[in-house]
Amino acid sequence: MVKFDEKNQVDSVNGALALRPEIESIVDRYLTAGIRNLCWLGIGGTWASCLQVVCHMKESTDMDVFAANAAEYCATGDLRIGEGTLVVISSVTGTTAEVVDAVKLVRQRGAKVLGFIDKPDSELAGLVDECISYKSNEQLKFFMTADYILYRQGRFQDYAAYYAQLEAHLAKDLVEIEKQTDSFAEEFARKHMNDALHYFVGAGCLYGATYSYAMCYWEEMHWIRTKSIHSAEFFHGMLEVVDLETPITVFVGEDSQRELGLRVAKFLPRVCKNYTVIDTRDYPLEGIDDVYRGRLCHLVLHAVTNRIDAHLEALSGHDMTIRRYYRKVDY
Amino acid sequence: MVKFDEKNQVDSVNGALALRPEIESIVDRYLTAGIRNLCWLGIGGTWASCLQVVCHMKESTDMDVFAANAAEYCATGDLRIGEGTLVVISSVTGTTAEVVDAVKLVRQRGAKVLGFIDKPDSELAGLVDECISYKSNEQLKFFMTADYILYRQGRFQDYAAYYAQLEAHLAKDLVEIEKQTDSFAEEFARKHMNDALHYFVGAGCLYGATYSYAMCYWEEMHWIRTKSIHSAEFFHGMLEVVDLETPITVFVGEDSQRELGLRVAKFLPRVCKNYTVIDTRDYPLEGIDDVYRGRLCHLVLHAVTNRIDAHLEALSGHDMTIRRYYRKVDY
Repeated sequence: MVKFDEKNQVDSVNGALALRPEIESIVDRYLTAGIRNLCWLGIGGTWASCLQVVCHMKESTDMDVFAANAAEYCATGDLRIGEGTLVVISSVTGTTAEVVDAVKLVRQRGAKVLGFIDKPDSELAGLVDECISYKSNEQLKFFMTADYILYRQGRFQDYAAYYAQLEAHLAKDLVEIEKQTDSFAEEFARKHMNDALHYFVGAGCLYGATYSYAMCYWEEMHWIRTKSIHSAEFFHGMLEVVDLETPITVFVGEDSQRELGLRVAKFLPRVCKNYTVIDTRDYPLEGIDDVYRGRLCHLVLHAVTNRIDAHLEALSGHDMTIRRYYRKVDY
Repeated sequence: MVKFDEKNQVDSVNGALALRPEIESIVDRYLTAGIRNLCWLGIGGTWASCLQVVCHMKESTDMDVFAANAAEYCATGDLRIGEGTLVVISSVTGTTAEVVDAVKLVRQRGAKVLGFIDKPDSELAGLVDECISYKSNEQLKFFMTADYILYRQGRFQDYAAYYAQLEAHLAKDLVEIEKQTDSFAEEFARKHMNDALHYFVGAGCLYGATYSYAMCYWEEMHWIRTKSIHSAEFFHGMLEVVDLETPITVFVGEDSQRELGLRVAKFLPRVCKNYTVIDTRDYPLEGIDDVYRGRLCHLVLHAVTNRIDAHLEALSGHDMTIRRYYRKVDY
């Protein structure tokens, strides 16, 4: 398998899961002091991760939890953010300009910031109140934080049992999914690598993944044009431009919005013959109870798209790390 | 000018502005009883209008105000919505299935619903607590409601002066903008009517307009493929797929996010020669103070895109009312 390092991937996920005591201790301190609301702040791919975790939390809490786009926040502000707000961010480089500016601003307003910042010596790491530095696994870190807050609110009583299962099985399960999907992923990459425009459709906690996979992977890394759309919104405009040859991929998850994805999957065969349905339910998660699959479907999807990316890169010869403009040109 | 009925358009806007006492009386009743939070609920184009008005309100209030997508709400719920929630909706037909279901659900949860429903004898009109029936002008109705709430909160002291100016000048100003932009709109329509994919970029209270113009007008009505993206997010992925020939239109508004639009407008000439900037500042609003332009830029933009639509339809011969699937096929 190209670009596949099983041991490294297993270690990476298990290392992220091992951050749990550190996350719990920080969250405990803020919850004990009392928080009024919870803001997940990001831009681009990290903003998409914020959308995912907000959708996840909304299923079970009435607390004021929301996603803020860093650039929009710097321009428009958000008067809800201030004393008593916990802001959570994530950054690989620790230097994203909009996030640096936004963190300075929310701290001026009295909010506290927990940052998952891969580089502990970066500018952002020096700006936040609490910094956890560990590479990759952004969604997992966000969902671990969210789940512990839900647990502390009495909204997720299975917390300990659930994470015990993840610690025992998740890392291995995810690499097994990569192996299982590899030949599909190669075929998919070959079929769509020259698409003039590829549509991605998704809902629930997969919507953020749909948005970022289209924009941060296919557009930014593979230089293939895409449009992403929420499965519910697909029926309010986009469906009219679908014809037999339109390349469309629907991500179907297992959370509360599964039916919205299935509705698109059911409609497409009537009007299109170039569609693909990636249903996370088709992939086993050994050792993890079925009832938890909705909480994990974004990681299952990521394992599948990770293989598609590996094959797209290998087949096209286009190095995913090359950028035309981003961080190369001033604007 | 094709598809232009000056008297009808002036009367339509003035008629919408004349709804103000009715809106004020309903809002007064809810605010006096006390509301905990404010939810703008819609799907497709109406959801986009919700995004616009939420962005507008966020500039000046810390109240819990948010947009909810009707289909997502029905699937996932939102525990913030209940007793003490005022939900505002808009519907032309009064029959949109997702909105009908969502309104039933929010009322079961104890929320109150104010509906702007063009057809007073429709299903939705019978479901809401308060119904105001007047054709078109969705954004204007939403912004009038929002502005009165802001006024009552002490967040918009100019309310009376502002609406006095709108009542005296807005309707006429908007038709004058249509006349001023008509030859540009025809040229634009001619240039882009055969685009394989057209990108629309916008920010602030124009982001909702950007999203809905791309999806509800070009995709649904003109059957031209589009992608819409927020001006802030443009720099986090999409910029990498722009080349010299890529058709991109940037909507630049005059609210707090103007700079985000200008940033895209400044970047594009360096990498693309097929871009258009539509800056609402280029259009006069006689009799209305400059300080209010940010509150109105979405209506200025609508006047411009309205002319583009008229010419696209005339040039292509594709009737904007024809649908392939929407409300024609069960799904």
